[in-house]
Amino acid sequence: MRSLKLLMVLIGTAPFTASALAKTPAHGRAWTLEDVLDAPEVTDLIRGIDAGSALYVVRAAAPSANEIRSTLYKYDPKERAPRKLLSAPAIEQLSREPNSLYYTALLNLGNGLQLYRIDDNGATTPLIVNDHPAVVGHACGAVYANKDSAPQNVGVLSYSWSPDGKWLWYAIPKPQAPSPMLFNQEVENMEWVGCNNGGTDVELRIRAANGADRLVTTRPRRDRAAFYFGGNVKWGEQNVLYRIETGDENAQNRAETINYNLTSGVSKESDLPPDESNQALSKPVDMHFETTGTGATRTLIEHIGAGKTLNRGKVNFSLGDVRAAGAWISRDGKVTIAGVREVDVPRYDLVRIDEKGSRLIGGEDSLTRCDFTSDLDEGFCIREGMNTPPELVHVLPASGKIDRLTAISPRHEEIAPLRVTPKIWTNRLGYVANGFIVWPRDYEAGHAYPAIIVTHGSDADQRFVAHFYQWEYPTQLFAEKGYIVIAMNDPSVRQSPKLMAAMDSWGSPHPSVSPSELRQLIYMNGVYSFEDAVKEMIAAGQVDPAKVGLAGYSRGSQMAQVTMTQSHMFRAASSGDGDFLDPASWWPGRTLYTSVFGGSPYDPKIDAYRELSPHLRAQEASGAMLQQIAHISAGEIHLHRAFEAAHVPTELTYYPGESPNNTETHVFHIPRNRLNAMKENLAWFDFWLLGKEDKELLPSERFASWEAMKASDSTLRAKRP
Amino acid sequence: MRSLKLLMVLIGTAPFTASALAKTPAHGRAWTLEDVLDAPEVTDLIRGIDAGSALYVVRAAAPSANEIRSTLYKYDPKERAPRKLLSAPAIEQLSREPNSLYYTALLNLGNGLQLYRIDDNGATTPLIVNDHPAVVGHACGAVYANKDSAPQNVGVLSYSWSPDGKWLWYAIPKPQAPSPMLFNQEVENMEWVGCNNGGTDVELRIRAANGADRLVTTRPRRDRAAFYFGGNVKWGEQNVLYRIETGDENAQNRAETINYNLTSGVSKESDLPPDESNQALSKPVDMHFETTGTGATRTLIEHIGAGKTLNRGKVNFSLGDVRAAGAWISRDGKVTIAGVREVDVPRYDLVRIDEKGSRLIGGEDSLTRCDFTSDLDEGFCIREGMNTPPELVHVLPASGKIDRLTAISPRHEEIAPLRVTPKIWTNRLGYVANGFIVWPRDYEAGHAYPAIIVTHGSDADQRFVAHFYQWEYPTQLFAEKGYIVIAMNDPSVRQSPKLMAAMDSWGSPHPSVSPSELRQLIYMNGVYSFEDAVKEMIAAGQVDPAKVGLAGYSRGSQMAQVTMTQSHMFRAASSGDGDFLDPASWWPGRTLYTSVFGGSPYDPKIDAYRELSPHLRAQEASGAMLQQIAHISAGEIHLHRAFEAAHVPTELTYYPGESPNNTETHVFHIPRNRLNAMKENLAWFDFWLLGKEDKELLPSERFASWEAMKASDSTLRAKRP
Repeated sequence: MRSLKLLMVLIGTAPFTASALAKTPAHGRAWTLEDVLDAPEVTDLIRGIDAGSALYVVRAAAPSANEIRSTLYKYDPKERAPRKLLSAPAIEQLSREPNSLYYTALLNLGNGLQLYRIDDNGATTPLIVNDHPAVVGHACGAVYANKDSAPQNVGVLSYSWSPDGKWLWYAIPKPQAPSPMLFNQEVENMEWVGCNNGGTDVELRIRAANGADRLVTTRPRRDRAAFYFGGNVKWGEQNVLYRIETGDENAQNRAETINYNLTSGVSKESDLPPDESNQALSKPVDMHFETTGTGATRTLIEHIGAGKTLNRGKVNFSLGDVRAAGAWISRDGKVTIAGVREVDVPRYDLVRIDEKGSRLIGGEDSLTRCDFTSDLDEGFCIREGMNTPPELVHVLPASGKIDRLTAISPRHEEIAPLRVTPKIWTNRLGYVANGFIVWPRDYEAGHAYPAIIVTHGSDADQRFVAHFYQWEYPTQLFAEKGYIVIAMNDPSVRQSPKLMAAMDSWGSPHPSVSPSELRQLIYMNGVYSFEDAVKEMIAAGQVDPAKVGLAGYSRGSQMAQVTMTQSHMFRAASSGDGDFLDPASWWPGRTLYTSVFGGSPYDPKIDAYRELSPHLRAQEASGAMLQQIAHISAGEIHLHRAFEAAHVPTELTYYPGESPNNTETHVFHIPRNRLNAMKENLAWFDFWLLGKEDKELLPSERFASWEAMKASDSTLRAKRP
Repeated sequence: MRSLKLLMVLIGTAPFTASALAKTPAHGRAWTLEDVLDAPEVTDLIRGIDAGSALYVVRAAAPSANEIRSTLYKYDPKERAPRKLLSAPAIEQLSREPNSLYYTALLNLGNGLQLYRIDDNGATTPLIVNDHPAVVGHACGAVYANKDSAPQNVGVLSYSWSPDGKWLWYAIPKPQAPSPMLFNQEVENMEWVGCNNGGTDVELRIRAANGADRLVTTRPRRDRAAFYFGGNVKWGEQNVLYRIETGDENAQNRAETINYNLTSGVSKESDLPPDESNQALSKPVDMHFETTGTGATRTLIEHIGAGKTLNRGKVNFSLGDVRAAGAWISRDGKVTIAGVREVDVPRYDLVRIDEKGSRLIGGEDSLTRCDFTSDLDEGFCIREGMNTPPELVHVLPASGKIDRLTAISPRHEEIAPLRVTPKIWTNRLGYVANGFIVWPRDYEAGHAYPAIIVTHGSDADQRFVAHFYQWEYPTQLFAEKGYIVIAMNDPSVRQSPKLMAAMDSWGSPHPSVSPSELRQLIYMNGVYSFEDAVKEMIAAGQVDPAKVGLAGYSRGSQMAQVTMTQSHMFRAASSGDGDFLDPASWWPGRTLYTSVFGGSPYDPKIDAYRELSPHLRAQEASGAMLQQIAHISAGEIHLHRAFEAAHVPTELTYYPGESPNNTETHVFHIPRNRLNAMKENLAWFDFWLLGKEDKELLPSERFASWEAMKASDSTLRAKRP
């Protein structure tokens, strides 16, 4: 894996700046917590106006300011190095302004997220400034949105230029006056957020070159196509196609395409059929390809109009994954390039599709952000992997040739790579799960090491310090400290129709799979994968069976909680911001719970809860449970109490928001919290798996309270493997 | 009842102002919603410095400003009328400054609640201004406190003057820096408030006449004696006795008395034993009397020192009720006057106790606020009743003579009184409940009227528009509209040792009464009282059995919810801000729930929940349920969902706070909310009991949604009496 990269460096064209040239040395330095904390994420990448240049936005923690900031860089082909243009708390939706010498982006320069024109030196001029922005984020009174950032004023939600640059389509929030009373469903909606949140409508608007500004339509906040993806339009000569969400509880991802006439200013239904795919809300209006099927039947499908499709052959990847690069259609419409996710080794490649067929572009790492010329003959991408800090590369799609241009974070390239082995595990039911083994820095065969499984759905993949995967579990530091880290995904439901049916039934009001089968396939299946993977490494003498832990946030927290009360293999777990399967959540979760348990926990006939709900299985717990949470929800507190009552070591830690009026986000965004949470995890596993107390990680009184738990630890009675 | 008052007016000494003289006319006007909304509450009363004068604070809604304000008045014996001195959002703890020409009070004049000197004309001078106040109230980040007001900055919590005016004792909050992480119990504490609230310590301080200021002690926020009653001290020549709370989960009301030496500045334990009475935290340090026993054994006890007591005889009242007037001890220590609550007809009188014995002072109405000269030979009180707007009276304790001086709210005296009948009901178990019947304005014997029970613990008593009793259920308007209102209290637990044992067991970790007996005595006992009272009036032809409703907030909401799922007598109910008996609240409420149900709702052996929890008895519901809430808690939402699923008409209405960052309070404090809630209740009962839709109360779409509920109303199947 490194050899290919080394080759690219050797053929890379001089002169790089010294730091950009500092490729991962064979004997670089070890990982630090700070490396994990401020690992860069490239959130936007576009071609520059001058040939060979590229602009990209790096989002990273600025620990000294205790905030996450975005920085806009320009890669200059003459200097062969990036240059910083500007920095702000938010830089989003970077774009070229057509037929101009400018770029545009949504920037928060202090008066909320607004649309600016940006010149080649990073100087900004406001283009659209909405003086009545909405506060968006996890705060009382804010418009709640699924973001991993501090609450911020948002003046402009999204935008799109017409190809000739004469029209500007954009979406803005229109905050609603607070309601003097809230009723029924409105009140129920508050149960999750916990306070009386604000409301807003979304205006889709269009501005002509002469400045004339028109309202296209007003949509309610619940229209996620408008709120999150309002700038997702297709420009015609005389019209614009845009999407609105029209689904209800039974059709959650349903988008209709509307045709807006630029001359008349009238919106009408388009002749495109409603889209009810999983990607309906986010996929480009003009995307004609999709992948369907499971396992051996996975196929690339082309929609050729009038509801007809063309089978373009078997493939081993998925289109439409939001983590993959976007999609581009050549000016003549004949070539499509789209980001895909690979099935076997989880990484993100590109597929180039033309009349003749399709071909993959990529390598062992991922291509996660890209932009291409209008005829798709060349472009730029960000390449990254579990062990590869993001770097800017040049891509020739026709040949698949990829050349490194520059480092994104030279500092992260100073780190000596850890050994990372892609892996596919088959469990006792025959289902496969994929992922990676990250080996201790000083691993030696013949020794048994402590091990930690880190899991979050399908997020163990070839990205660099992907917080969605490792959250505040610092995989790299675990490996530096001598743990084997098993980065394992859930068994992909796309491997079999039966798993897919179970997933489709999960939360469906009309499940096709019985609750007991669903529990087996969606939960126990994962437990078996964990257990069987560990058993294999124990059998190989690689893992010490007395020192195995498990960590996961969100979906991973479900798996951590379920596994700890089903398996006797794990001595300690860390569960991140997850609240699920608590019977007390029956009413808010009743459709989902019915699919999992078959009915209400208060129905005396139903004992399914006692089979799966961790809250009712404290006496089965096999080890210590740390819960790190961003949001107060009953399930986490109840689990803590149930474990405490059963003398299972349990620690419940809440990480607050910037102010009492807002919370931390599901993926933490406050650097101090992320650092503290990583330290707590390192200390937690060291304590329960290794019996170590590292006072540089936590104050003594924390260890003293854990010592007290250990003294009355009922899980010591548990059978061990 | 009115005749006595009329007599007082006739002998009253001219000249009253015209409005103050406007006594309740025989044919006054009818009640309006506004009358209920801005009904005055006198929160403080003291003697003035010039003989015969009195100062008092009136707290009332200012609907035009949508806030509650306090106004300080001085009654001038020469003018025989009150004069307004000042008005502010908060005026608390009005006091005379000893040996001066001034008064003092905590005022919020814009920079938080601080201590001011007030002169005879209402001019103010700051005495203690704490520049680092704490926000106190129901807001995220605020110090949570049991108040019925908007969150406000509090600089000074409480204070007390030494009798010579040379020392000033006071308590201030010391807000704590927010914690970067919260653990375990701290996290559990957030489940109720729902957000990361602020913390504070409490400093008890003392200031000498020369301005020298000393810290006496710092107490944690959880010390309620310090936080709420820090100014409750007893001054000696060389010392101050003060109280601190030292109880834990098993001794919730436990106060110790500490002796502070004015010379040395040192605090030491006093020789007073710890107090573990129900009034331990609030009762005056030097109060030597208490009432004990139940039913026929109810006795006045005098503590005569060294742990010894003197039996002062059987009494028919309770000392120490926080709704009664306070307590005063004469300068020579020989006479005590204290506010009491009567056992039979719930009202507040005074008891005067000396060596010879005790005598009651009062009448048919209540004396709720008082102040007396230092030898207790004369004083002022506020007299009020269900039908009597508050008025200032002059009291001669030795003779019991009471003379009216002036109206507090002349406008409310223009209302023609409704007929109010005190009543004691005995239910099928033999337990008595007391309260009042409020008759329709145009009641005629021989007709059957619709009826509504309004209940809240023991708050149906002789106070004027007591919000703790009638909350947002406008008793007076119901009567004006033709309903009989049954204002009924819970059966008093003081009537029998068995009921007292049940109450003591309710929530105790060591209950002496079985869960099934507790459910019978604490819940079903009340249901039987309601049913039997209504049956009696149905039998007498006074109540129409098809038109009976029930309303209560808090404890009353428990009774409303239980009754609606146990009895078939009630066609509609309104439940105010109450969340209880939901099995999903097992973990936060497990001690209490264990006393009520015997264990966890998830224990398959336990079916007690299905016997009592309204959430599991939706199929037994007898009528429509309106829940008006100030705070999002799961139990209310779950009940709504359970009723909705069973096609029981159910409406869940949330009344927001002033801003998204704070909530309404348990007793509403925002006039607009109180008005809207009263209108909603009037409309609710009119709709479900009488089939009327009053469009002046609510918009049409509300009635339309209720019509839709009525169309699928499953409770129409319920058996009716």
